[in-house]
Amino acid sequence: MSMNTYGHVFRVTTWGESHGPALGATVDGCPPGVPLTAPAIQQWLDKRRPGQNKNTTQRNEPDAVEILSGVFEDVTTGTPIQLMIRNTDQRSKDYGDIAQTFRPGHADITYHQKYGLRDYRGGGRSSARETAARVAAGGVARAALDRLVPGVQIKGYMVQMGEKRIDRSRFDWDAIDGNDFWCPDPGVVQEWEEYLQWLRKDDHNSVGAMIEVVARGVPAGLGAPVYGKLDTDLAAAMMSINAVKGVEIGEGMAAAGLTGRDNADEIFMGENGPEYSSNHSGGILGGISTGQEIVVRFAVKPTSSILSPRKSIRMDGTPTEVVTKGRHDPCVGIRAVPVGEAMMASVLLDHLLLDRAQTGGARGQIGNSAPNPSR
Amino acid sequence: MSMNTYGHVFRVTTWGESHGPALGATVDGCPPGVPLTAPAIQQWLDKRRPGQNKNTTQRNEPDAVEILSGVFEDVTTGTPIQLMIRNTDQRSKDYGDIAQTFRPGHADITYHQKYGLRDYRGGGRSSARETAARVAAGGVARAALDRLVPGVQIKGYMVQMGEKRIDRSRFDWDAIDGNDFWCPDPGVVQEWEEYLQWLRKDDHNSVGAMIEVVARGVPAGLGAPVYGKLDTDLAAAMMSINAVKGVEIGEGMAAAGLTGRDNADEIFMGENGPEYSSNHSGGILGGISTGQEIVVRFAVKPTSSILSPRKSIRMDGTPTEVVTKGRHDPCVGIRAVPVGEAMMASVLLDHLLLDRAQTGGARGQIGNSAPNPSR
Amino acid sequence: MSMNTYGHVFRVTTWGESHGPALGATVDGCPPGVPLTAPAIQQWLDKRRPGQNKNTTQRNEPDAVEILSGVFEDVTTGTPIQLMIRNTDQRSKDYGDIAQTFRPGHADITYHQKYGLRDYRGGGRSSARETAARVAAGGVARAALDRLVPGVQIKGYMVQMGEKRIDRSRFDWDAIDGNDFWCPDPGVVQEWEEYLQWLRKDDHNSVGAMIEVVARGVPAGLGAPVYGKLDTDLAAAMMSINAVKGVEIGEGMAAAGLTGRDNADEIFMGENGPEYSSNHSGGILGGISTGQEIVVRFAVKPTSSILSPRKSIRMDGTPTEVVTKGRHDPCVGIRAVPVGEAMMASVLLDHLLLDRAQTGGARGQIGNSAPNPSR
Amino acid sequence: MSMNTYGHVFRVTTWGESHGPALGATVDGCPPGVPLTAPAIQQWLDKRRPGQNKNTTQRNEPDAVEILSGVFEDVTTGTPIQLMIRNTDQRSKDYGDIAQTFRPGHADITYHQKYGLRDYRGGGRSSARETAARVAAGGVARAALDRLVPGVQIKGYMVQMGEKRIDRSRFDWDAIDGNDFWCPDPGVVQEWEEYLQWLRKDDHNSVGAMIEVVARGVPAGLGAPVYGKLDTDLAAAMMSINAVKGVEIGEGMAAAGLTGRDNADEIFMGENGPEYSSNHSGGILGGISTGQEIVVRFAVKPTSSILSPRKSIRMDGTPTEVVTKGRHDPCVGIRAVPVGEAMMASVLLDHLLLDRAQTGGARGQIGNSAPNPSR
Repeated sequence: MSMNTYGHVFRVTTWGESHGPALGATVDGCPPGVPLTAPAIQQWLDKRRPGQNKNTTQRNEPDAVEILSGVFEDVTTGTPIQLMIRNTDQRSKDYGDIAQTFRPGHADITYHQKYGLRDYRGGGRSSARETAARVAAGGVARAALDRLVPGVQIKGYMVQMGEKRIDRSRFDWDAIDGNDFWCPDPGVVQEWEEYLQWLRKDDHNSVGAMIEVVARGVPAGLGAPVYGKLDTDLAAAMMSINAVKGVEIGEGMAAAGLTGRDNADEIFMGENGPEYSSNHSGGILGGISTGQEIVVRFAVKPTSSILSPRKSIRMDGTPTEVVTKGRHDPCVGIRAVPVGEAMMASVLLDHLLLDRAQTGGARGQIGNSAPNPSR
Repeated sequence: MSMNTYGHVFRVTTWGESHGPALGATVDGCPPGVPLTAPAIQQWLDKRRPGQNKNTTQRNEPDAVEILSGVFEDVTTGTPIQLMIRNTDQRSKDYGDIAQTFRPGHADITYHQKYGLRDYRGGGRSSARETAARVAAGGVARAALDRLVPGVQIKGYMVQMGEKRIDRSRFDWDAIDGNDFWCPDPGVVQEWEEYLQWLRKDDHNSVGAMIEVVARGVPAGLGAPVYGKLDTDLAAAMMSINAVKGVEIGEGMAAAGLTGRDNADEIFMGENGPEYSSNHSGGILGGISTGQEIVVRFAVKPTSSILSPRKSIRMDGTPTEVVTKGRHDPCVGIRAVPVGEAMMASVLLDHLLLDRAQTGGARGQIGNSAPNPSR
Repeated sequence: MSMNTYGHVFRVTTWGESHGPALGATVDGCPPGVPLTAPAIQQWLDKRRPGQNKNTTQRNEPDAVEILSGVFEDVTTGTPIQLMIRNTDQRSKDYGDIAQTFRPGHADITYHQKYGLRDYRGGGRSSARETAARVAAGGVARAALDRLVPGVQIKGYMVQMGEKRIDRSRFDWDAIDGNDFWCPDPGVVQEWEEYLQWLRKDDHNSVGAMIEVVARGVPAGLGAPVYGKLDTDLAAAMMSINAVKGVEIGEGMAAAGLTGRDNADEIFMGENGPEYSSNHSGGILGGISTGQEIVVRFAVKPTSSILSPRKSIRMDGTPTEVVTKGRHDPCVGIRAVPVGEAMMASVLLDHLLLDRAQTGGARGQIGNSAPNPSR
Repeated sequence: MSMNTYGHVFRVTTWGESHGPALGATVDGCPPGVPLTAPAIQQWLDKRRPGQNKNTTQRNEPDAVEILSGVFEDVTTGTPIQLMIRNTDQRSKDYGDIAQTFRPGHADITYHQKYGLRDYRGGGRSSARETAARVAAGGVARAALDRLVPGVQIKGYMVQMGEKRIDRSRFDWDAIDGNDFWCPDPGVVQEWEEYLQWLRKDDHNSVGAMIEVVARGVPAGLGAPVYGKLDTDLAAAMMSINAVKGVEIGEGMAAAGLTGRDNADEIFMGENGPEYSSNHSGGILGGISTGQEIVVRFAVKPTSSILSPRKSIRMDGTPTEVVTKGRHDPCVGIRAVPVGEAMMASVLLDHLLLDRAQTGGARGQIGNSAPNPSR
């Protein structure tokens, strides 16, 4: 696997820096015959677009995606799909003063140490703008999933911002798209908004977040027993997103606190196959999907670029204080929601294709339930 | 990447089932000229060996590793190293009764659904015995690391068992090897032992655990900016271990609760290069190592095989209750400690080799500090 | 891809040296449910076994394959298949005198230069014994192909030995297995035998050979347009065999001498789909199989180990003359026949699985012919 | 490895169709700190550009490359380099009549069979235009090689066109760039030109060619023993070029006709290390470079698009005759010369990086000669 690529058979390589002429994704291995247009991809990019609401960075770019290859007459051909997004609003002068300084919490210092040089404009390759390319690629994955497994639903949402958490008893799937936080608990939205405004304007601070991504309608049997586990690839996919520091499947870190009796998902025979009394496993057992909801959570650290001064050093080793002006989200977690969805879609499609490579999509019989139709 | 392989340049493919004739690891890409003997690997296997203490399974096997290739006159040659461990104490009759039944929390049902058949003896490929192969491969990685970066230390330990946690104020690195839990807080050991005995004998139950793995002395500059991040590969490596449900780097899931001001690791110039006021980042910034301690935590779910009956179904769809007799650890997390160390060693060596492929090991200068010597 | 692995989804990693305890192949990605036993693999190993006839090396080993994993009750489970062959007749004292000397035409000198050390016993990793592992892995590929595409036939044969060539007008598919050269022209066999005897005993020399491998019954549509072409992977597979110096598909190097009018394979509509007036393409157009016979040829250089003295140097740089005694085939091309078949089988299975990953095995319609049934 | 990617550590993924908006290459794994500009890459593209001379297609496009990422202030940063070439002169109406027809010798029919649809404009993905992307990527590889191994020279040239061959006794390295055929024998150029004119204008025909690519100054020790051999990767790289049907290293297919005594490259001690009496091996022994010239040859089949009618079928299965008008080279082999050079450069850089990953560039000592300086 190369360093800027994810996926085994459905493979995405992203490229581009924050302030170069463009960025994008090279998507290889997409099945042929999938209906695909630029607007179909654009809908997902519009979800993560900066400048979209008052809680995200004021940088204002259309992030318009162009399809440069792999699609003919609005259908995928099976050849590589090149997705390009032009950078149009770069204001790189904002960043000139950090060319010689390492911002705490940023990749500035480690890039310099590894490569001996770096594109310091806006974080270069380490900018969160890179995630636009992932979201575009995820749009391709969603289009292919829609065709191969009609009914699959993938949804991300924020469950925590700083110390503020949603009330799970008020969880409302349909409320998620109705607020600027992709928050499933409408009852906390106003409080979160006020807190975020205060944090940015008055406290000159930022805050972390917890995102949950759920996939419904995923067939049983995706994944592999040992290293190519579905959860291994989901963990890698989510941890590879900028600023993510932890990933959980199902019960997650809380599994450490449970006993075996409490953690067991008991099995029953339903009308259409096996059913479970609970979903501590997050829809994955032994690395392979159970057919239940797949549930992944990840933590996004608070934005490192803040208006409060932090101590650091310059390239010549002299001490300095860094105050990051630029235009930055006080909670990058908000924009990580569509990114997490895109990674989930890419991993699921990849494993769907891998599964049909090895098994042809055949399924073991349980009781009289029909095994999944072959794909 | 194939389904049973991890690593990019230092690549490990594990093979084998719990009750087949043998299991092992095919290790490709090890540098030549590394001193390596079977006893040097055996020391790590002995750490995770079943039957070693009263808190782990009573299955008693020597788990003796044989080196079948890639080593000549006790030195690696640069060709593939085959490590084989014979299975000697299998008692597969213990498992005959589960051939038609799916154990809750186990991979039985998903394997059957995916492959249409499975080696039901002792979990087959999904048995925790597979991790012996990883520990052996990790022994090769440690030997190579010792040669390429003298002074690297890798240490795993338990920080939580069920609801019982260590007291971080009593943390003692040197106490870890002195108890059966690899616990750095000697003050909790007796309580943990009594709890575990009660859990197994009286409560017929099991319990989860949290493991922390730390690497000291890792040079700055390992990793890559976007997908081939050091944290991405560590997350994948740990999540691929049986029964792991969550992985954290540094602050981990708690990062969601912090503000940017609190989370900043401020930078100072030390005598030998940059130093940091704290290590919220867990030693990784932008996917690349900072030179600080690398800190990873993962949660292991409670053993699913317990003596308490759990509801399930048979292959024909009829309901049943499962009580797993066999010989099972009440807390598999204990044996996950050496496994986590082995995965850390393998990932670090792989990234060390990848780094010297791309950069030749050169480092950017900061102040007057000498960049790392080239490797 | 690691250095000792071939294949994308059906992946084979070989390991082992000529004079170590064992060698073998780790086979990952095999479909589940394929009937497989050691004797079924052994039949192919017996074809390449040394000591089998008077034209190959006198080293006498049973080359008995053991299946250590991935097969349960004589059926593949979908997990890695470990195939091990013990080395039993090593006589490594024969090789002691070459520890300090580089044999011309051998890898001795380049191994030493690259790795700084080498397992000099019998060529170590560069010994032709390594190909036994490929033949074993090819046996797995054949078993899977038989199940997925019944009727596929793969056959290799010698078409040239030194300056002696077969007469294509006497080509007899059924004669191939009836002589020690896998020669399809029975009319040349006696002459070849006498020549080879003379070469070895009287001339103390060796000779090169040309092998052709044909696959019949391969469906149209395997391969990919650009880099993952079926011919790319076949070229790599054949060139990776010891002593191979050239690979051709269909018309091969002779295509350089043809005009476009002569080289065109004209297309007609047959009863079961498209048919062609000729097969200059060797069954592959644009990297994708046409449904015709797939035809690959490769050249094997003469054995470098001969009884005639050749000039060389020692590790200390002093000049010497090398006469290789040991036990060596005067024409290693003979034993390359089953190896070429194994590589063909492995590549075809890999591309069959890759194709069903991306397309699900669906085929474009031409006329009224039914597209291939989905696999 | 994905289907449109080559290389292990230095990885190139090409994308784009003949008549889409653009095509290009995503280049990952390039070392940081390599001086690189668009004009430096453009010089190689200008060598293969259509419309350059009277023997190649009349399609006239500047093939101007843009660097979209991975380069900052004219130096590589170590992040992915996106190279884009806009398609500007497409005239896709020329191709409308072949949407329903399969051109003999083209990928039309196999693409349709595999994918069920195809971008029929100018061959789409299977057009030789794809090779422009490889040439651009090869320009990056050359720049990196220049920095890491100063003095490496890579040169391709035609040694045969149809039945006309160069006279090796008149071989002149310096004459190669002085004629439209990249021919090292100036004595045949006029005859070749007249032949090609006649072939195109009068005979309405095309012709095949043989290309040789040589690399001088490559250090000993690049490659690997078994599957990741340098010759394996060179064979794959060359065979992956459109219309190539055979690949040879050193003696190549002719090795089948030699005896061991004749084929031996005897070894002597020179002033700067080992020297050889001859180069039958083509600079590669046991998969690893010897330090001699690396010599690869490949055969390019005659252009399938000719003005002479050839029999074929339509998608509905009815018979037809195909006369390909468009604008096509009568000998595509000419333009394959810079493509072969680009593939050689990419493979060598990749193996240079792989070698320093595993060995750190250390070399075994022979006599008193200094081992290669570490890279």
